[in-house]
Amino acid sequence: MIDESIRPRLGIIGGLGPLASADFYFKLTRMTEALRDNEHVPSVILSVPQLPDRTEAIIAGHDGPLAPLQAAVSTLNALEVACIAMPCNTAHHWYGQLAANSRAEIIHIGDAVVAEIRRNLNRGCVANLATRGTLVSGFYQDRISAAGFDLCLPANAEFQERVDNAIALVKAGSIADAATETERALHLAQLAGADAALLGCTELSVVAASLNDTNGLIVIDSNAALARACLTRLGYGVQEARGLPTVSRLPEQDRLPWQRAS
Amino acid sequence: MIDESIRPRLGIIGGLGPLASADFYFKLTRMTEALRDNEHVPSVILSVPQLPDRTEAIIAGHDGPLAPLQAAVSTLNALEVACIAMPCNTAHHWYGQLAANSRAEIIHIGDAVVAEIRRNLNRGCVANLATRGTLVSGFYQDRISAAGFDLCLPANAEFQERVDNAIALVKAGSIADAATETERALHLAQLAGADAALLGCTELSVVAASLNDTNGLIVIDSNAALARACLTRLGYGVQEARGLPTVSRLPEQDRLPWQRAS
Repeated sequence: MIDESIRPRLGIIGGLGPLASADFYFKLTRMTEALRDNEHVPSVILSVPQLPDRTEAIIAGHDGPLAPLQAAVSTLNALEVACIAMPCNTAHHWYGQLAANSRAEIIHIGDAVVAEIRRNLNRGCVANLATRGTLVSGFYQDRISAAGFDLCLPANAEFQERVDNAIALVKAGSIADAATETERALHLAQLAGADAALLGCTELSVVAASLNDTNGLIVIDSNAALARACLTRLGYGVQEARGLPTVSRLPEQDRLPWQRAS
Repeated sequence: MIDESIRPRLGIIGGLGPLASADFYFKLTRMTEALRDNEHVPSVILSVPQLPDRTEAIIAGHDGPLAPLQAAVSTLNALEVACIAMPCNTAHHWYGQLAANSRAEIIHIGDAVVAEIRRNLNRGCVANLATRGTLVSGFYQDRISAAGFDLCLPANAEFQERVDNAIALVKAGSIADAATETERALHLAQLAGADAALLGCTELSVVAASLNDTNGLIVIDSNAALARACLTRLGYGVQEARGLPTVSRLPEQDRLPWQRAS
Protein backbone atom coordinates (compact mmCIF):
# COMPACT_ATOMS: atom_id res chain seq x y z
CA MET A 1 0.00 0.00 0.00
CA ILE A 2 2.80 2.43 0.79
CA ASP A 3 5.87 2.99 -1.33
CA GLU A 4 8.93 1.37 0.18
CA SER A 5 10.92 4.62 -0.18
CA ILE A 6 8.73 6.35 2.42
CA ARG A 7 7.59 3.44 4.60
CA PRO A 8 7.22 4.47 8.28
CA ARG A 9 8.52 2.18 11.03
CA LEU A 10 6.70 3.80 13.94
CA GLY A 11 3.00 4.64 13.92
CA ILE A 12 1.75 7.17 16.44
CA ILE A 13 -1.87 7.70 17.45
CA GLY A 14 -1.74 11.39 18.29
CA GLY A 15 -3.98 14.33 19.01
CA LEU A 16 -5.00 13.02 22.43
CA GLY A 17 -4.31 15.87 22.97
CA PRO A 18 -2.40 17.60 20.17
CA LEU A 19 0.11 19.38 22.40
CA ALA A 20 0.91 16.11 24.18
CA SER A 21 1.60 14.51 20.78
CA ALA A 22 3.79 17.41 19.68
CA ASP A 23 5.71 16.98 22.94
CA PHE A 24 6.09 13.25 22.25
CA TYR A 25 7.33 13.85 18.68
CA PHE A 26 9.75 16.48 19.95
CA LYS A 27 11.10 14.16 22.65
CA LEU A 28 11.31 11.17 20.30
CA THR A 29 13.41 13.32 17.95
CA ARG A 30 15.58 14.88 20.66
CA MET A 31 16.23 11.50 22.31
CA THR A 32 17.34 9.83 19.06
CA GLU A 33 21.10 9.47 18.82
CA ALA A 34 21.33 11.14 15.41
CA LEU A 35 23.31 13.83 13.66
CA ARG A 36 21.50 13.80 10.30
CA ASP A 37 17.90 13.54 9.10
CA ASN A 38 18.22 10.00 7.78
CA GLU A 39 19.39 8.68 11.16
CA HIS A 40 15.92 9.37 12.58
CA VAL A 41 12.91 7.03 12.77
CA PRO A 42 10.61 7.15 9.75
CA SER A 43 7.21 7.57 11.35
CA VAL A 44 3.61 8.56 10.85
CA ILE A 45 1.51 10.50 13.33
CA LEU A 46 -2.21 10.17 12.90
CA SER A 47 -3.51 13.08 14.94
CA VAL A 48 -7.15 12.45 15.85
CA PRO A 49 -8.23 15.17 18.29
CA GLN A 50 -11.84 14.61 17.20
CA LEU A 51 -12.08 11.40 19.29
CA PRO A 52 -14.64 11.27 22.13
CA ASP A 53 -13.20 12.16 25.55
CA ARG A 54 -11.53 9.07 27.04
CA THR A 55 -12.08 9.87 30.73
CA GLU A 56 -15.75 10.69 30.20
CA ALA A 57 -16.24 7.32 28.47
CA ILE A 58 -14.48 5.32 31.20
CA ILE A 59 -16.36 7.08 34.01
CA ALA A 60 -19.70 6.61 32.16
CA GLY A 61 -18.80 2.98 31.42
CA HIS A 62 -19.06 3.16 27.62
CA ASP A 63 -16.60 2.38 24.83
CA GLY A 64 -17.15 5.41 22.57
CA PRO A 65 -13.45 5.96 21.81
CA LEU A 66 -12.78 2.29 20.99
CA ALA A 67 -14.11 2.18 17.41
CA PRO A 68 -12.13 5.25 16.21
CA LEU A 69 -9.04 4.00 18.06
CA GLN A 70 -9.43 0.67 16.24
CA ALA A 71 -9.80 2.56 12.95
CA ALA A 72 -6.55 4.41 13.72
CA VAL A 73 -4.77 1.13 14.47
CA SER A 74 -6.07 -0.32 11.18
CA THR A 75 -4.90 2.71 9.21
CA LEU A 76 -1.42 2.56 10.75
CA ASN A 77 -1.22 -1.17 10.03
CA ALA A 78 -2.21 -0.47 6.43
CA LEU A 79 0.76 1.94 6.31
CA GLU A 80 2.90 -1.08 7.30
CA VAL A 81 4.39 0.30 10.51
CA ALA A 82 6.45 -2.09 12.67
CA CYS A 83 5.03 -0.81 15.94
CA ILE A 84 2.56 1.67 17.32
CA ALA A 85 2.70 4.15 20.19
CA MET A 86 -0.19 6.02 21.80
CA PRO A 87 1.07 9.10 23.66
CA CYS A 88 -2.15 9.15 25.70
CA ASN A 89 -2.24 7.21 28.94
CA THR A 90 -6.03 7.14 29.28
CA ALA A 91 -6.49 5.54 25.85
CA HIS A 92 -4.58 2.51 27.16
CA HIS A 93 -7.80 1.52 28.94
CA TRP A 94 -8.63 -0.16 25.59
CA TYR A 95 -5.13 -1.57 25.02
CA GLY A 96 -6.24 -5.22 25.08
CA GLN A 97 -8.85 -4.85 22.34
CA LEU A 98 -6.52 -2.69 20.22
CA ALA A 99 -3.50 -5.00 20.53
CA ALA A 100 -5.63 -8.05 19.73
CA ASN A 101 -6.52 -6.50 16.37
CA SER A 102 -3.12 -5.15 15.36
CA ARG A 103 -0.39 -6.90 13.40
CA ALA A 104 2.04 -4.20 14.55
CA GLU A 105 3.06 -4.41 18.19
CA ILE A 106 1.48 -1.67 20.30
CA ILE A 107 4.03 -0.50 22.86
CA HIS A 108 2.20 -0.13 26.20
CA ILE A 109 2.95 3.17 27.88
CA GLY A 110 2.55 1.50 31.29
CA ASP A 111 5.37 -0.94 30.57
CA ALA A 112 7.54 1.92 29.33
CA VAL A 113 6.82 3.87 32.51
CA VAL A 114 7.63 0.97 34.84
CA ALA A 115 11.00 0.58 33.06
CA GLU A 116 11.58 4.32 33.55
CA ILE A 117 10.69 4.15 37.25
CA ARG A 118 13.20 1.31 37.65
CA ARG A 119 15.88 3.41 35.95
CA ASN A 120 15.30 6.08 38.59
CA LEU A 121 14.73 4.24 41.87
CA ASN A 122 14.94 0.74 43.37
CA ARG A 123 12.02 0.92 45.74
CA GLY A 124 9.77 3.46 47.33
CA CYS A 125 6.44 5.13 47.02
CA VAL A 126 5.13 6.41 43.68
CA ALA A 127 2.28 8.88 43.22
CA ASN A 128 0.41 9.01 39.92
CA LEU A 129 -0.72 12.30 38.43
CA ALA A 130 -3.25 10.95 35.94
CA THR A 131 -6.76 11.48 34.64
CA ARG A 132 -9.65 10.07 36.64
CA GLY A 133 -10.18 7.73 33.67
CA THR A 134 -6.68 6.28 33.94
CA LEU A 135 -7.11 5.82 37.69
CA VAL A 136 -10.46 4.01 37.25
CA SER A 137 -8.93 1.86 34.51
CA GLY A 138 -6.32 0.69 37.01
CA PHE A 139 -3.54 -0.44 34.69
CA TYR A 140 -0.94 1.66 36.47
CA GLN A 141 -1.82 0.43 39.95
CA ASP A 142 -1.37 -3.19 38.77
CA ARG A 143 1.94 -2.54 37.03
CA ILE A 144 3.52 -0.35 39.70
CA SER A 145 2.60 -2.82 42.48
CA ALA A 146 3.79 -5.81 40.46
CA ALA A 147 7.14 -4.05 39.98
CA GLY A 148 7.57 -3.88 43.77
CA PHE A 149 6.80 -0.22 44.37
CA ASP A 150 4.26 1.18 46.79
CA LEU A 151 1.49 3.37 45.52
CA CYS A 152 1.00 6.73 47.12
CA LEU A 153 -2.51 8.09 46.89
CA PRO A 154 -2.81 11.52 48.51
CA ALA A 155 -6.02 11.52 50.56
CA ASN A 156 -6.47 15.26 50.13
CA ALA A 157 -9.12 15.84 47.42
CA GLU A 158 -7.17 18.92 46.35
CA PHE A 159 -4.52 16.63 44.81
CA GLN A 160 -6.76 15.28 42.03
CA GLU A 161 -8.36 18.69 41.52
CA ARG A 162 -4.92 20.20 40.87
CA VAL A 163 -4.11 17.36 38.44
CA ASP A 164 -7.41 17.83 36.60
CA ASN A 165 -6.81 21.61 36.42
CA ALA A 166 -3.30 21.15 35.07
CA ILE A 167 -4.48 18.78 32.33
CA ALA A 168 -7.32 21.11 31.29
CA LEU A 169 -4.94 24.10 31.28
CA VAL A 170 -2.51 22.33 28.92
CA LYS A 171 -5.40 21.45 26.60
CA ALA A 172 -6.37 25.14 26.70
CA GLY A 173 -2.80 26.13 25.88
CA SER A 174 -1.94 27.72 29.25
CA ILE A 175 1.30 25.89 29.92
CA ALA A 176 2.72 28.22 32.56
CA ASP A 177 -0.46 28.02 34.66
CA ALA A 178 -0.52 24.26 34.15
CA ALA A 179 3.03 24.04 35.49
CA THR A 180 1.98 25.89 38.64
CA GLU A 181 -0.96 23.52 39.19
CA THR A 182 1.29 20.51 38.56
CA GLU A 183 3.79 21.77 41.14
CA ARG A 184 1.00 22.07 43.70
CA ALA A 185 -0.04 18.46 43.03
CA LEU A 186 3.59 17.30 43.28
CA HIS A 187 3.88 19.15 46.58
CA LEU A 188 0.80 17.36 47.95
CA ALA A 189 2.18 14.03 46.71
CA GLN A 190 5.44 14.64 48.56
CA LEU A 191 3.55 15.59 51.73
CA ALA A 192 1.70 12.25 51.40
CA GLY A 193 5.03 10.39 51.37
CA ALA A 194 5.85 10.00 47.67
CA ASP A 195 9.49 9.40 46.67
CA ALA A 196 8.63 9.70 42.99
CA ALA A 197 5.74 11.14 41.03
CA LEU A 198 4.59 9.88 37.68
CA LEU A 199 3.31 12.40 35.18
CA GLY A 200 0.84 9.70 34.15
CA CYS A 201 -0.99 11.88 31.64
CA THR A 202 0.91 13.08 28.58
CA GLU A 203 -0.63 16.55 28.94
CA LEU A 204 1.54 16.86 32.05
CA SER A 205 4.61 15.75 30.06
CA VAL A 206 4.22 19.05 28.20
CA VAL A 207 5.05 20.95 31.40
CA ALA A 208 7.78 18.55 32.61
CA ALA A 209 10.68 20.72 31.49
CA SER A 210 9.02 23.89 32.82
CA LEU A 211 8.70 22.71 36.44
CA ASN A 212 10.63 24.52 39.11
CA ASP A 213 12.85 22.66 41.56
CA THR A 214 10.83 19.73 42.95
CA ASN A 215 12.67 19.45 46.26
CA GLY A 216 14.17 16.02 45.60
CA LEU A 217 10.95 14.41 44.41
CA ILE A 218 11.77 12.24 41.37
CA VAL A 219 9.52 13.10 38.43
CA ILE A 220 8.81 10.43 35.79
CA ASP A 221 7.63 11.71 32.39
CA SER A 222 5.36 9.18 30.63
CA ASN A 223 5.98 10.71 27.17
CA ALA A 224 9.76 10.51 27.58
CA ALA A 225 9.42 6.93 28.86
CA LEU A 226 7.33 5.98 25.82
CA ALA A 227 9.80 7.67 23.44
CA ARG A 228 12.68 5.72 25.00
CA ALA A 229 10.74 2.45 24.71
CA CYS A 230 9.96 3.08 21.03
CA LEU A 231 13.56 3.91 20.14
CA THR A 232 14.88 0.89 22.01
CA ARG A 233 12.30 -1.41 20.44
CA LEU A 234 13.26 -0.20 16.95
CA GLY A 235 17.00 -0.49 17.57
CA TYR A 236 17.86 3.23 17.70
CA GLY A 237 20.46 4.67 20.05
CA VAL A 238 18.95 6.78 22.83
CA GLN A 239 20.50 9.91 24.27
CA GLU A 240 19.32 12.08 27.12
CA ALA A 241 17.23 14.81 25.58
CA ARG A 242 19.05 18.13 25.72
CA GLY A 243 17.08 21.33 25.78
CA LEU A 244 13.50 20.18 25.89
CA PRO A 245 10.93 22.86 25.26
CA THR A 246 10.27 25.02 28.27
CA VAL A 247 7.99 27.94 28.82
CA SER A 248 9.39 30.76 30.88
CA ARG A 249 7.20 32.22 33.57
CA LEU A 250 6.95 35.75 34.80
CA PRO A 251 9.07 36.25 37.91
CA GLU A 252 6.16 37.64 39.94
CA GLN A 253 4.20 34.42 39.52
CA ASP A 254 3.67 32.72 42.86
CA ARG A 255 6.15 30.01 43.70
CA LEU A 256 5.47 26.79 45.49
CA PRO A 257 6.88 26.87 49.03
CA TRP A 258 8.81 23.60 48.78
CA GLN A 259 11.20 24.65 51.52
CA ARG A 260 8.51 25.27 54.11
CA ALA A 261 6.96 21.90 53.34
CA SER A 262 9.98 19.72 53.84
CA MET B 1 -9.89 4.23 2.48
CA ILE B 2 -9.91 5.89 5.89
CA ASP B 3 -12.73 5.71 8.41
CA GLU B 4 -14.71 8.96 8.52
CA SER B 5 -14.38 9.08 12.33
CA ILE B 6 -10.63 9.65 12.09
CA ARG B 7 -10.29 11.39 8.73
CA PRO B 8 -7.47 13.98 8.73
CA ARG B 9 -8.00 17.40 7.12
CA LEU B 10 -4.36 18.45 6.93
CA GLY B 11 -1.58 16.23 5.57
CA ILE B 12 1.97 17.13 6.52
CA ILE B 13 5.11 15.88 4.78
CA GLY B 14 7.49 15.88 7.72
CA GLY B 15 10.89 14.67 8.76
CA LEU B 16 12.74 17.17 6.53
CA GLY B 17 14.12 17.40 9.14
CA PRO B 18 12.34 15.82 12.08
CA LEU B 19 12.95 18.65 14.56
CA ALA B 20 11.66 21.18 12.02
CA SER B 21 8.48 19.10 11.69
CA ALA B 22 8.06 18.82 15.44
CA ASP B 23 8.41 22.60 15.61
CA PHE B 24 5.76 22.99 12.89
CA TYR B 25 3.33 20.64 14.67
CA PHE B 26 3.95 22.47 17.94
CA LYS B 27 3.33 25.88 16.34
CA LEU B 28 0.27 24.66 14.42
CA THR B 29 -1.20 23.46 17.72
CA ARG B 30 -0.21 26.54 19.74
CA MET B 31 -1.55 28.90 17.08
CA THR B 32 -4.95 27.20 16.86
CA GLU B 33 -7.65 29.11 18.69
CA ALA B 34 -8.78 26.13 20.76
CA LEU B 35 -9.52 25.25 24.35
CA ARG B 36 -10.26 21.53 23.90
CA ASP B 37 -8.81 18.64 21.90
CA ASN B 38 -11.66 18.45 19.42
CA GLU B 39 -11.26 22.10 18.41
CA HIS B 40 -7.89 21.25 16.81
CA VAL B 41 -7.17 20.23 13.20
CA PRO B 42 -7.32 16.48 12.54
CA SER B 43 -4.06 15.86 10.72
CA VAL B 44 -1.54 13.30 9.62
CA ILE B 45 2.22 13.79 9.62
CA LEU B 46 4.15 11.48 7.36
CA SER B 47 7.68 11.87 8.66
CA VAL B 48 10.15 10.76 5.97
CA PRO B 49 13.67 11.60 7.20
CA GLN B 50 15.02 8.86 4.91
CA LEU B 51 14.58 11.09 1.82
CA PRO B 52 17.70 12.04 -0.18
CA ASP B 53 19.16 15.42 0.76
CA ARG B 54 17.27 18.16 -1.08
CA THR B 55 20.06 20.72 -1.36
CA GLU B 56 22.54 18.12 -2.65
CA ALA B 57 20.06 17.13 -5.36
CA ILE B 58 19.37 20.71 -6.46
CA ILE B 59 23.07 21.62 -6.57
CA ALA B 60 23.89 18.40 -8.48
CA GLY B 61 20.93 19.00 -10.79
CA HIS B 62 19.10 15.72 -10.16
CA ASP B 63 15.58 14.94 -8.97
CA GLY B 64 16.32 12.18 -6.42
CA PRO B 65 13.89 13.49 -3.79
CA LEU B 66 11.01 13.92 -6.27
CA ALA B 67 9.81 10.29 -6.50
CA PRO B 68 9.56 9.77 -2.70
CA LEU B 69 7.95 13.21 -2.31
CA GLN B 70 5.39 12.18 -4.94
CA ALA B 71 4.82 8.93 -3.05
CA ALA B 72 4.21 10.94 0.13
CA VAL B 73 1.72 13.18 -1.69
CA SER B 74 -0.08 10.08 -3.03
CA THR B 75 -0.27 8.50 0.42
CA LEU B 76 -1.67 11.69 1.96
CA ASN B 77 -4.22 11.95 -0.86
CA ALA B 78 -5.21 8.33 -0.21
CA LEU B 79 -5.83 9.37 3.41
CA GLU B 80 -8.28 11.94 1.98
CA VAL B 81 -6.71 15.10 3.38
CA ALA B 82 -8.11 18.45 2.21
CA CYS B 83 -4.71 20.09 1.92
CA ILE B 84 -1.03 19.37 2.33
CA ALA B 85 1.82 21.30 3.94
CA MET B 86 5.55 20.68 3.60
CA PRO B 87 7.45 22.27 6.50
CA CYS B 88 10.65 22.17 4.40
CA ASN B 89 11.46 25.14 2.22
CA THR B 90 13.98 23.37 0.01
CA ALA B 91 11.50 20.65 -0.97
CA HIS B 92 9.38 23.36 -2.61
CA HIS B 93 11.84 23.25 -5.50
CA TRP B 94 9.61 20.40 -6.76
CA TYR B 95 6.32 22.14 -5.89
CA GLY B 96 5.08 22.30 -9.46
CA GLN B 97 5.41 18.57 -10.15
CA LEU B 98 3.93 17.68 -6.75
CA ALA B 99 0.95 20.03 -7.00
CA ALA B 100 0.21 18.84 -10.54
CA ASN B 101 -0.27 15.30 -9.20
CA SER B 102 -2.25 16.06 -6.05
CA ARG B 103 -6.02 16.29 -5.61
CA ALA B 104 -5.43 18.01 -2.27
CA GLU B 105 -4.16 21.57 -2.50
CA ILE B 106 -0.51 21.89 -1.50
CA ILE B 107 -0.06 25.14 0.42
CA HIS B 108 3.14 26.78 -0.84
CA ILE B 109 5.39 27.92 2.00
CA GLY B 110 6.63 30.81 -0.17
CA ASP B 111 3.12 32.24 -0.49
CA ALA B 112 2.62 31.83 3.26
CA VAL B 113 5.90 33.65 3.92
CA VAL B 114 5.09 36.56 1.61
CA ALA B 115 1.77 37.01 3.45
CA GLU B 116 3.71 36.97 6.74
CA ILE B 117 6.23 39.55 5.48
CA ARG B 118 3.31 41.80 4.48
CA ARG B 119 1.83 41.46 7.98
CA ASN B 120 5.11 42.76 9.38
CA LEU B 121 6.28 45.49 7.01
CA ASN B 122 5.07 47.54 4.04
CA ARG B 123 8.33 47.85 2.17
CA GLY B 124 12.01 47.43 2.71
CA CYS B 125 14.83 45.02 2.28
CA VAL B 126 14.50 41.33 3.16
CA ALA B 127 17.40 38.89 3.67
CA ASN B 128 16.81 35.17 3.29
CA LEU B 129 18.49 32.68 5.61
CA ALA B 130 17.99 29.56 3.53
CA THR B 131 19.77 26.48 2.23
CA ARG B 132 21.92 26.82 -0.87
CA GLY B 133 19.34 24.57 -2.55
CA THR B 134 16.49 26.98 -1.84
CA LEU B 135 18.60 29.91 -3.11
CA VAL B 136 19.47 28.09 -6.34
CA SER B 137 15.82 27.10 -6.79
CA GLY B 138 14.93 30.80 -6.69
CA PHE B 139 11.27 30.66 -5.71
CA TYR B 140 11.77 33.12 -2.86
CA GLN B 141 13.59 35.70 -4.93
CA ASP B 142 10.68 35.70 -7.42
CA ARG B 143 7.98 35.96 -4.78
CA ILE B 144 9.65 38.57 -2.59
CA SER B 145 10.44 40.81 -5.56
CA ALA B 146 6.95 40.40 -6.99
CA ALA B 147 5.52 41.49 -3.63
CA GLY B 148 7.43 44.77 -3.91
CA PHE B 149 10.23 44.13 -1.43
CA ASP B 150 13.94 44.45 -2.10
CA LEU B 151 16.19 41.45 -1.63
CA CYS B 152 19.22 41.84 0.54
CA LEU B 153 22.05 39.45 -0.26
CA PRO B 154 24.98 39.93 2.11
CA ALA B 155 28.16 39.85 -0.04
CA ASN B 156 30.22 38.51 2.85
CA ALA B 157 30.70 34.74 2.32
CA GLU B 158 30.54 34.32 6.08
CA PHE B 159 26.78 34.97 5.94
CA GLN B 160 25.92 31.76 4.06
CA GLU B 161 28.51 29.77 6.05
CA ARG B 162 26.80 30.81 9.30
CA VAL B 163 23.42 29.85 7.86
CA ASP B 164 24.72 26.45 6.72
CA ASN B 165 26.29 25.87 10.15
CA ALA B 166 23.09 26.77 11.95
CA ILE B 167 21.03 24.37 9.83
CA ALA B 168 23.50 21.51 10.34
CA LEU B 169 23.61 22.20 14.09
CA VAL B 170 19.82 21.95 14.40
CA LYS B 171 19.87 18.66 12.48
CA ALA B 172 22.55 17.47 14.93
CA GLY B 173 20.38 18.55 17.87
CA SER B 174 22.57 21.45 19.06
CA ILE B 175 19.90 24.11 19.24
CA ALA B 176 21.74 26.58 21.49
CA ASP B 177 24.80 26.61 19.21
CA ALA B 178 22.52 26.91 16.19
CA ALA B 179 20.90 29.98 17.75
CA THR B 180 24.31 31.60 18.13
CA GLU B 181 25.17 30.94 14.48
CA THR B 182 21.77 32.24 13.39
CA GLU B 183 22.32 35.44 15.36
CA ARG B 184 25.66 35.97 13.61
CA ALA B 185 23.97 35.57 10.22
CA LEU B 186 21.19 37.97 11.25
CA HIS B 187 23.82 40.45 12.34
CA LEU B 188 25.56 40.26 8.95
CA ALA B 189 22.19 40.66 7.21
CA GLN B 190 21.49 43.81 9.20
CA LEU B 191 24.96 45.19 8.38
CA ALA B 192 24.11 44.57 4.70
CA GLY B 193 21.00 46.73 5.05
CA ALA B 194 18.23 44.25 5.79
CA ASP B 195 15.06 45.52 7.50
CA ALA B 196 13.72 42.01 7.88
CA ALA B 197 15.24 38.53 7.78
CA LEU B 198 13.41 35.45 6.69
CA LEU B 199 14.21 32.20 8.47
CA GLY B 200 13.73 30.56 5.07
CA CYS B 201 14.70 27.09 6.27
CA THR B 202 12.44 25.39 8.81
CA GLU B 203 15.50 24.15 10.73
CA LEU B 204 16.03 27.80 11.64
CA SER B 205 12.39 28.05 12.78
CA VAL B 206 13.40 25.67 15.57
CA VAL B 207 15.69 28.35 17.04
CA ALA B 208 13.34 31.29 16.39
CA ALA B 209 12.08 31.51 19.97
CA SER B 210 15.59 31.07 21.38
CA LEU B 211 17.11 34.09 19.64
CA ASN B 212 18.36 36.96 21.73
CA ASP B 213 17.33 40.53 21.01
CA THR B 214 17.78 41.14 17.28
CA ASN B 215 18.29 44.91 17.51
CA GLY B 216 15.12 45.86 15.68
CA LEU B 217 15.60 43.48 12.76
CA ILE B 218 12.23 41.87 11.98
CA VAL B 219 12.50 38.08 11.93
CA ILE B 220 10.03 36.09 9.80
CA ASP B 221 9.57 32.43 10.77
CA SER B 222 8.65 30.25 7.75
CA ASN B 223 7.18 27.46 9.93
CA ALA B 224 4.91 29.90 11.79
CA ALA B 225 3.90 31.46 8.46
CA LEU B 226 3.01 28.04 7.05
CA ALA B 227 1.04 27.10 10.19
CA ARG B 228 -0.95 30.33 9.94
CA ALA B 229 -1.66 29.70 6.23
CA CYS B 230 -2.88 26.14 6.95
CA LEU B 231 -5.19 27.20 9.78
CA THR B 232 -6.62 30.06 7.73
CA ARG B 233 -7.13 27.83 4.68
CA LEU B 234 -9.00 25.26 6.79
CA GLY B 235 -11.17 27.85 8.55
CA TYR B 236 -9.63 27.68 12.00
CA GLY B 237 -9.16 30.72 14.22
CA VAL B 238 -5.52 31.76 14.64
CA GLN B 239 -4.01 33.14 17.81
CA GLU B 240 -0.50 34.39 18.45
CA ALA B 241 1.45 31.42 19.75
CA ARG B 242 2.19 31.87 23.44
CA GLY B 243 5.17 30.18 24.99
CA LEU B 244 6.90 28.60 22.04
CA PRO B 245 9.64 26.15 22.87
CA THR B 246 12.89 27.81 23.78
CA VAL B 247 16.21 26.42 24.81
CA SER B 248 18.00 28.34 27.51
CA ARG B 249 21.68 29.01 27.04
CA LEU B 250 24.43 29.18 29.58
CA PRO B 251 25.10 32.77 30.65
CA GLU B 252 28.80 32.59 29.78
CA GLN B 253 28.03 31.83 26.14
CA ASP B 254 29.27 34.59 23.91
CA ARG B 255 26.72 37.17 22.97
CA LEU B 256 26.34 38.94 19.69
CA PRO B 257 27.47 42.56 19.94
CA TRP B 258 24.34 44.08 18.37
CA GLN B 259 24.95 47.38 20.05
CA ARG B 260 28.42 47.88 18.57
CA ALA B 261 27.09 47.03 15.13
CA SER B 262 24.32 49.61 14.95
